[in-house]
Amino acid sequence: MSFTEALEPTAESLWDAIVDHPMVAQLGEGTLDEDPFRYWVRQDYVYLVEYSRVFALGAAKAPDLRRLGTFAELLESTVNTEMDLHRKYAAEFGVSEQELEATEPSPTTRAYTDFLVRTASIGTFGDLVAALLPCMWGFNATARRLDARGRPNHEGYAAWIDMYAGEEFTELTEWCLDLMDDVAADASDGTRERYRDLFVLSGRYEYRFWDAAWREEEWEVAV
Amino acid sequence: MSFTEALEPTAESLWDAIVDHPMVAQLGEGTLDEDPFRYWVRQDYVYLVEYSRVFALGAAKAPDLRRLGTFAELLESTVNTEMDLHRKYAAEFGVSEQELEATEPSPTTRAYTDFLVRTASIGTFGDLVAALLPCMWGFNATARRLDARGRPNHEGYAAWIDMYAGEEFTELTEWCLDLMDDVAADASDGTRERYRDLFVLSGRYEYRFWDAAWREEEWEVAV
Amino acid sequence: MSFTEALEPTAESLWDAIVDHPMVAQLGEGTLDEDPFRYWVRQDYVYLVEYSRVFALGAAKAPDLRRLGTFAELLESTVNTEMDLHRKYAAEFGVSEQELEATEPSPTTRAYTDFLVRTASIGTFGDLVAALLPCMWGFNATARRLDARGRPNHEGYAAWIDMYAGEEFTELTEWCLDLMDDVAADASDGTRERYRDLFVLSGRYEYRFWDAAWREEEWEVAV
Amino acid sequence: MSFTEALEPTAESLWDAIVDHPMVAQLGEGTLDEDPFRYWVRQDYVYLVEYSRVFALGAAKAPDLRRLGTFAELLESTVNTEMDLHRKYAAEFGVSEQELEATEPSPTTRAYTDFLVRTASIGTFGDLVAALLPCMWGFNATARRLDARGRPNHEGYAAWIDMYAGEEFTELTEWCLDLMDDVAADASDGTRERYRDLFVLSGRYEYRFWDAAWREEEWEVAV
Repeated sequence: MSFTEALEPTAESLWDAIVDHPMVAQLGEGTLDEDPFRYWVRQDYVYLVEYSRVFALGAAKAPDLRRLGTFAELLESTVNTEMDLHRKYAAEFGVSEQELEATEPSPTTRAYTDFLVRTASIGTFGDLVAALLPCMWGFNATARRLDARGRPNHEGYAAWIDMYAGEEFTELTEWCLDLMDDVAADASDGTRERYRDLFVLSGRYEYRFWDAAWREEEWEVAV
Repeated sequence: MSFTEALEPTAESLWDAIVDHPMVAQLGEGTLDEDPFRYWVRQDYVYLVEYSRVFALGAAKAPDLRRLGTFAELLESTVNTEMDLHRKYAAEFGVSEQELEATEPSPTTRAYTDFLVRTASIGTFGDLVAALLPCMWGFNATARRLDARGRPNHEGYAAWIDMYAGEEFTELTEWCLDLMDDVAADASDGTRERYRDLFVLSGRYEYRFWDAAWREEEWEVAV
Repeated sequence: MSFTEALEPTAESLWDAIVDHPMVAQLGEGTLDEDPFRYWVRQDYVYLVEYSRVFALGAAKAPDLRRLGTFAELLESTVNTEMDLHRKYAAEFGVSEQELEATEPSPTTRAYTDFLVRTASIGTFGDLVAALLPCMWGFNATARRLDARGRPNHEGYAAWIDMYAGEEFTELTEWCLDLMDDVAADASDGTRERYRDLFVLSGRYEYRFWDAAWREEEWEVAV
Repeated sequence: MSFTEALEPTAESLWDAIVDHPMVAQLGEGTLDEDPFRYWVRQDYVYLVEYSRVFALGAAKAPDLRRLGTFAELLESTVNTEMDLHRKYAAEFGVSEQELEATEPSPTTRAYTDFLVRTASIGTFGDLVAALLPCMWGFNATARRLDARGRPNHEGYAAWIDMYAGEEFTELTEWCLDLMDDVAADASDGTRERYRDLFVLSGRYEYRFWDAAWREEEWEVAV
């Protein structure tokens, strides 16, 4: 059994929790108020910048030229294509580029991205992959479950599901699953345990990222 | 006006918020329930391990031999002396060494320490100092304020105040303030702004660290 | 006077030393034996892999999204386009892809690339730019000087000059000069001095990289 | 067979080459001119600063508290004790503290320490240990071989042998060998191969470090 096959029950329980969250459930039904979603869109933009840094660190630490090239492509397409698509998507919800640029990371966005960048900086290449995996796998699994429930009567939310349940993002997820299995194949039990812990932590942040949008989370102490 | 003098109003408002938090106020009055405090003791132990890594990264990035030596001393005394004192202090609250070692970081402990280690890893030496400062300054300011309100009728809490309001910790705080001013002295306005942001974020985490203990915070999603 | 204008006399003396080296002078005259050049081609391939890691670390540490995007593009085009051109160029000298892949870094290639990756890893974004600059500026200046002396009667060497004296590489050099000036604009004197030292060290390695090819340098101790 | 036992034939051939180098052989015989040795003393001082950074990064990346504590001790004792001993030793050869502080790294010192810091920064904890090992093992093995040949009729050189063949340094070497075996115990074949390559490279630098002193190596290009 491959590492990610062994991980599947854990992953399933994380995706279950996410799909059961009212923010996600209502997105899938098309009944979600747009305010928390706009909050999500703005925070996701901030997230993408830090996520790009994780790809960059993946390229810097890649054990061979082939994987260096793949991380380089992912980085380049995220910064120079995905973020542009995100700006266009945000505009459909009335969120301007200036608003995106001016967004401060929420406590949860900081926590999640600091965890990712810390792990990518001071951890191994395998640690980085383990921490990265839930972001792709989780969005793909979430969108596919919502898709199976039927198309929401809201263009923007339907587009969200189409993007992350779609072929391109499914392929990206499969690439990341394969990379994880590849890296874990000859890892010791202790190292696999560490990968598992990093995966679970990112998975919990995936849940929290939705929850923070739902609560339109802010820092307590104004300064 | 030095950088930390300019920072003082901001710092004061952070320490005000902290001293007003029920967890801290009740610690100062000696009325705090020991359960949330035990939670704090266990999380602070986890924190100290990651805090040591920040000192280690400070040594690795130190711009000269003198500062390399100071960070080396701080690291060594934290790992090999302070943590031992912490184990003894924890024992007085009935928290065993095994319990300390088995403690999982709370969401807030993860968030704070990932922020510190990320900043220390990928940021500059000055960034690291700015992120480190609230931990020392905040504890010292908090303990001194509580101390000025009078000694709590609880040995363990009084010992907490004595330690962090005491001469040795006050000197450590002053060393960190001087180091910050030294690093900021010839920094550009943009860099000072970045230092300020990092300081504020750590300051907010100082507040949250108390609040997490008060709430005995747990992760939402069990796996 | 901008930082790179102030640097120019130092840079000129480095490029003078390089153009006077027999390896470079004979390349310009078209009289260079192909053996040391094949050595150069193989080592430059190894260099490009590590050079890509420096771009990746530049993206990871970029202070803003615009520069993150530029480093992402440079990384992606180096790994996925330039290295392919390099393979084709090597083939014209009878060096196969397998030979390129099997090349072990020479002592000088290790030293230069370890310096670059160390600086990019543990230094600041500005340090990284300073260490990167001679690679672009030096090749451009060298090729332009050779070009001014007239076209060598050797297709491969003429192509080398065309590539690095050409418009595209000149623009890349100007981008790097502008980036350096941008980063140095509000730096303190001490920081500028550090940038200068890093620049000089990379400049010296540019010289040594040619010299190592000329000597077909090997490690002394066989194991 | 443990990893370091399997490494022994390779290590022996590296230490053989070192002990056969005229610089080392003459040090052992007490006939070495003091000029190249003073060069060595000055470069070794520069080396120790960077070596300390490697210990710091070892602490930052240590997989558990026990090893974090050991690296913290090594760092602290190197920066705050060993370097002081080195200053006193240097003084006996007429090299002042100011001269030590003013020493610029030679090409070989740069190359070796940039390799170490690069590996410690961007590599794994095990990579760091593999790159660190030859420094301890090599000095210990060299000094013990010279010691077995009889005491040189030169106080300073005899002191050198006593220090590195002595009990304390032998114990440090054994600690590093145990740590390496510990880290390599559950590593995959590919990872062990990478450790071996890193070990060999550091071993080659050990040879080169003596050779650079013998040649009183300088940078070619003055700027």
